[in-house]
Amino acid sequence: MTTKDEFKQAPHKLLVIPGPIEVADEVLFANAHPSMSHVSPDFIPVFGDCVRMTREVLYTKTAQPFLISGSGTLGWDQVAANLVEQGENALVLHSGYFGDSFQDCLETYGAKVTQLKAPIGRAVALSELEKELKSGKKYKIVTVTHVDTSTGVLSNAKEITAVVRRISPETLVVVDAVCSVASEEILFDDWDLDVVLSASQKGLGTPPGLSILVASQRAIDVFKSRKSPPSSYYASWKKWLPIMNAYEAGTAAYFATPPVNLIYAYHAALKLIVRGEKTLEERFKLHKEASRQVKEAAKRLGLKQLPETDDEAANGMTALYFPEGLTAGDILPRLGKRDVVVAGGLHAAIKDKYFRIGHMGVSVVDGQRGDVNTIVRALEEALKEARTKSA
Amino acid sequence: MTTKDEFKQAPHKLLVIPGPIEVADEVLFANAHPSMSHVSPDFIPVFGDCVRMTREVLYTKTAQPFLISGSGTLGWDQVAANLVEQGENALVLHSGYFGDSFQDCLETYGAKVTQLKAPIGRAVALSELEKELKSGKKYKIVTVTHVDTSTGVLSNAKEITAVVRRISPETLVVVDAVCSVASEEILFDDWDLDVVLSASQKGLGTPPGLSILVASQRAIDVFKSRKSPPSSYYASWKKWLPIMNAYEAGTAAYFATPPVNLIYAYHAALKLIVRGEKTLEERFKLHKEASRQVKEAAKRLGLKQLPETDDEAANGMTALYFPEGLTAGDILPRLGKRDVVVAGGLHAAIKDKYFRIGHMGVSVVDGQRGDVNTIVRALEEALKEARTKSA
Repeated sequence: MTTKDEFKQAPHKLLVIPGPIEVADEVLFANAHPSMSHVSPDFIPVFGDCVRMTREVLYTKTAQPFLISGSGTLGWDQVAANLVEQGENALVLHSGYFGDSFQDCLETYGAKVTQLKAPIGRAVALSELEKELKSGKKYKIVTVTHVDTSTGVLSNAKEITAVVRRISPETLVVVDAVCSVASEEILFDDWDLDVVLSASQKGLGTPPGLSILVASQRAIDVFKSRKSPPSSYYASWKKWLPIMNAYEAGTAAYFATPPVNLIYAYHAALKLIVRGEKTLEERFKLHKEASRQVKEAAKRLGLKQLPETDDEAANGMTALYFPEGLTAGDILPRLGKRDVVVAGGLHAAIKDKYFRIGHMGVSVVDGQRGDVNTIVRALEEALKEARTKSA
Repeated sequence: MTTKDEFKQAPHKLLVIPGPIEVADEVLFANAHPSMSHVSPDFIPVFGDCVRMTREVLYTKTAQPFLISGSGTLGWDQVAANLVEQGENALVLHSGYFGDSFQDCLETYGAKVTQLKAPIGRAVALSELEKELKSGKKYKIVTVTHVDTSTGVLSNAKEITAVVRRISPETLVVVDAVCSVASEEILFDDWDLDVVLSASQKGLGTPPGLSILVASQRAIDVFKSRKSPPSSYYASWKKWLPIMNAYEAGTAAYFATPPVNLIYAYHAALKLIVRGEKTLEERFKLHKEASRQVKEAAKRLGLKQLPETDDEAANGMTALYFPEGLTAGDILPRLGKRDVVVAGGLHAAIKDKYFRIGHMGVSVVDGQRGDVNTIVRALEEALKEARTKSA
């Protein structure tokens, strides 16, 4: 048999896209756990621990995690099908591609959506939000993309929530944190959030396939007092709430088979994050330092960031315009040749004009890997080569 | 680094519940693949191969597979949200717990459901189906649970489809094959099916977390001519069809991040099934033989099967009533002590009166493991001990 200490993943190109990210050996090993019954006494506490540790990552004592087999996108369905009823108003703060998708999802389930759209590279101004909330329209939810993976723009979830609480205290604040949980600080209880939705494959350093959503008790109360039943079956909290409660209480309940191996992997990843050598606070600091290092190197190399201001730039990823005269074809293959995998553009309006680098999880927390230096060096070399070639 | 040949999973209790089932070392190893971009040139053909090999397992040339992060349950949402519109009629053939759940799902999305309910231990009679189809009500879909995991009852999907085609040719036939794909023969094209929905963790021998659905071109046409948009976002074929087509064509497209590692695992499992030493036909024969072996041993031991007739008993699992005077507490822990994990009852009406044994995948195909003998021996010993104790 192969033991945890023995297992080492194969050498491979450094994966520094904004998710999936590099996954630690012990997390991959856990994903290869022998097959287990989803109701076995060995598995139940592992699932329960995942629920509890998810709370710790978000600094919440009382909010309710939902861990469901699915991609991050399923979190939108959970919000749209459980918290909004037919014809109710939703306000979407748009800072990139994912604002449009979230709107699409909300409308699928009957929400009336208003969008506040920031210019590319900016987050929605608090003053715009304030004006809209004072317009007289009653919003059931406000959604914000904490880090929009398409632009690398970081929205100020704390201040946004404060504005909502001041002007429209009953409106639920929903944070799409797919690309920010565990790479950006999120103080769920202190900020008074209602929903944080995420996925396993970014800051949480687990393979993709787990929709991770945390709901405040206020959100759960709103859900429980719905007039109509939830408008999704698979994403229904009516189905999942008893399951999450059962596993946390140390018993099993069945709605749909949980992704057992992935739960073992998530458990291993959470242990590294909340029980590891470094505190959560230290981890956030390391993400900031890695981000600064990449962004300063980019600046030195003459690359312009997509986010227009430093305080609206994510700490877990960097989006950079290609320099004048160079394209994706000049840069990305040259990074690939140096075994560094980054991502192209995603925002439709500027898709071919920029690229994205992820710096989350083990790549920034485990300094011995030297991943951030590898990124910077590869970027320097690739740019130099591309400029020589095109000169 | 750990190689595929080196990797051996840890010793563990033999998992013979009706899913998740035992997973082969090479499949678990693939689940521990280094993290990869979902749009990388290395991953795209792996996804494409999974689409193609899924067709082979079902003997179809032209049907359209959907491989989506989620549990088997998500397949019901796909059917309900893409193939049925508000107020349309659905006929659910009920042979156990999962008929009720499928009905619940269909109603969530607005279908009007009629249920034909077989007595416990039986499949719905073809004559009942024929009578209902001739009643004059126009059904958009008929659903059948091929093997109901709660009862072990096998429905005759081939004959059911023939009846539907004869009386109501436009009605789509939807087969819930979560507990039958790769353990029961399914001839998609020959039988003229419309939807087969399944999951990764049963006959397909992969960890749970992948919703696997295959739709006929007739079903796709019905979907494309919907009057209203699909009523789910995450389960929308409008979103997923271009993605499946792209990966199969060798390019990538993005809607939601696929479960990359699980796709590698599914690929490894499919290779064993359709490119392994044994043909698909041989595999089905081995499932029948193992089933016969377990069922005969049970009979010899005085255990009554839940399915009332042999031709309505699944080949991938066996559901057995506890003998007079003995309960789950007498049998299941004694099997556990012998490192054999079986499942308790699930059908609400008789939950405490029976138990279930799975015999699918490597446990029956790889004879060297001796799993079926292990099951039979443990059952004999556990029963003997329990009877001595209670005597």
